[in-house]
Amino acid sequence: MKLATLPNGTRDGRLAVVSRDLRRAAYADGIAATLQEAIERWDAVAPALQALYDAVNIGRDTVPFDAAQALAPLPRAWQWLDGSAYLSHGELMAKVFKIDNVQGAEPLMYQGISDRFLAPTEDVALPSEEDGIDFEGEFGVITGAVPLGVTPEEALAHVRLVVQINDWSLRVLAPREMKTGFGWVQAKPPCSVAPVAVTPDELGLSWRDGRVHRPLNVWFNGARFGAAEGGAMAFGFHELIAHAARTRNLCAGSIIGSGTVSNDSYRTVGSSCIAERRGIEILDEGAPRTPFMRYGDRVRMEVTLADGGSVFGAIDQRVVPVPR
Amino acid sequence: MKLATLPNGTRDGRLAVVSRDLRRAAYADGIAATLQEAIERWDAVAPALQALYDAVNIGRDTVPFDAAQALAPLPRAWQWLDGSAYLSHGELMAKVFKIDNVQGAEPLMYQGISDRFLAPTEDVALPSEEDGIDFEGEFGVITGAVPLGVTPEEALAHVRLVVQINDWSLRVLAPREMKTGFGWVQAKPPCSVAPVAVTPDELGLSWRDGRVHRPLNVWFNGARFGAAEGGAMAFGFHELIAHAARTRNLCAGSIIGSGTVSNDSYRTVGSSCIAERRGIEILDEGAPRTPFMRYGDRVRMEVTLADGGSVFGAIDQRVVPVPR
Repeated sequence: MKLATLPNGTRDGRLAVVSRDLRRAAYADGIAATLQEAIERWDAVAPALQALYDAVNIGRDTVPFDAAQALAPLPRAWQWLDGSAYLSHGELMAKVFKIDNVQGAEPLMYQGISDRFLAPTEDVALPSEEDGIDFEGEFGVITGAVPLGVTPEEALAHVRLVVQINDWSLRVLAPREMKTGFGWVQAKPPCSVAPVAVTPDELGLSWRDGRVHRPLNVWFNGARFGAAEGGAMAFGFHELIAHAARTRNLCAGSIIGSGTVSNDSYRTVGSSCIAERRGIEILDEGAPRTPFMRYGDRVRMEVTLADGGSVFGAIDQRVVPVPR
Repeated sequence: MKLATLPNGTRDGRLAVVSRDLRRAAYADGIAATLQEAIERWDAVAPALQALYDAVNIGRDTVPFDAAQALAPLPRAWQWLDGSAYLSHGELMAKVFKIDNVQGAEPLMYQGISDRFLAPTEDVALPSEEDGIDFEGEFGVITGAVPLGVTPEEALAHVRLVVQINDWSLRVLAPREMKTGFGWVQAKPPCSVAPVAVTPDELGLSWRDGRVHRPLNVWFNGARFGAAEGGAMAFGFHELIAHAARTRNLCAGSIIGSGTVSNDSYRTVGSSCIAERRGIEILDEGAPRTPFMRYGDRVRMEVTLADGGSVFGAIDQRVVPVPR
């Protein structure tokens, strides 16, 4: 099924069930008020949500769904842990920032800001064009409650929903924070999330091995920028979840990210962030040529199935100055 | 004033106002249900909380306060950003872990798990004694809503409450995570927080320059372990808040930590974590001698004012295996 959060004046919004084609929706009133509540009470509410989804898909008692009005599926979450599971991303970033490639036998993961996730079409206010504004297209999963010590095999059953994320990054600030070993605070402002969260079955055979086997389509100021294949993760989401839960329980509603989608064939498929393209330019031309984002620049990200249907709806946003 | 959160079967508990001597309390029912709510509506609720505090201090309509029953003041928070503002801590840790001392002109800060803060006397369940279980005694502040780009001078006015924290750390896991540059996930399970959060005025002249100028007393298995002076921060909390808010708004109820309290005079005042003592042993004796914690070991942390009165109540906990 497909779920979205629509604005109602509260920070957590109002849960809605969305038709597979993203054209119709019905509020989940009486089942769960918010997506966080639905995730916390999943076993109890999933059957009613599924029944509503079936009704929505045949057009019964629905309202038009306008993805541009949606909030992030979880407008805030108790936990956001982002991996970096695409090895070619790590290799290119090491080139760009002249740092060691830190990929190893264990997944890479940092804890990021989770008290706010931006709506998929709202303007993204950032304090300075000099910070190296960049997008990072990725996939994520929303988990149920996961016990400490879960195995990767067990972890797969705790994936409730799959989401599509833009992990905004400030590249001028990132290397200094990375060199401290403490991870990123200033370099990682709030992420954006595509309008619709989907249960894994919506991906059909494209969900397997804990990975989304579909390309992430990225357009930068209207021009095609990348279509890297999501399935190339060195670690699946089940392994990322087990890594995260090594010494902590994960609360219901934790969001686990894949890191920037990237393929070894980056010269063919393009990239999901500007920094990677700059890395390729360094390799091929000796110096980076593509600038980071300026105010007014737009990025769009969308994933479709083989039939052309949009899975999550689109992230489509413009970067703007922080209002004074 | 002094505030605590008492258990009522919900995850956020029930807000109570506690007498200065920590002997009496009154529920804040009708003012704010939870501490998070009080922080979000601070200007509206602070006068009523203060009036209740005045009444509690003269013993009107109170119940006995048992600090051992309290939850963490915020049993969960939307954001936990921990600094490392004591330079001697960084110097000793570099010795212990044979890493570069990464202290610089900017504060160090990582984002940690915030969906759960442990109650001050509950058992601390950790998965393995082989992980290098260690405590880290520190101070923290709970902020109101802080705008992006706040200056250090402005930031001080956003400090709502001061708290005392044990930032549990798993030392065997920490260096590998630090070397990735991504910060700590596995090495930093949930923190514990002392029972009472206090407004800065409760510290009198010991709150100045955005610092708590009192020693943090630490006992390990009943033996005095450290009494390092809190005032030795290289950056005050106002500077840590401004650092955190460089590219993000801080939501009301964000917790900002000082990092492990440590003084240059560590041979005299002792330490607030085992790793530091091991660093001193390496310096003085060529090898570390004090082992990390084993199951059953206890740590106690408490801060008093000059008159001997406890400021925050005590953290007093035992480490145990994760229940199977």
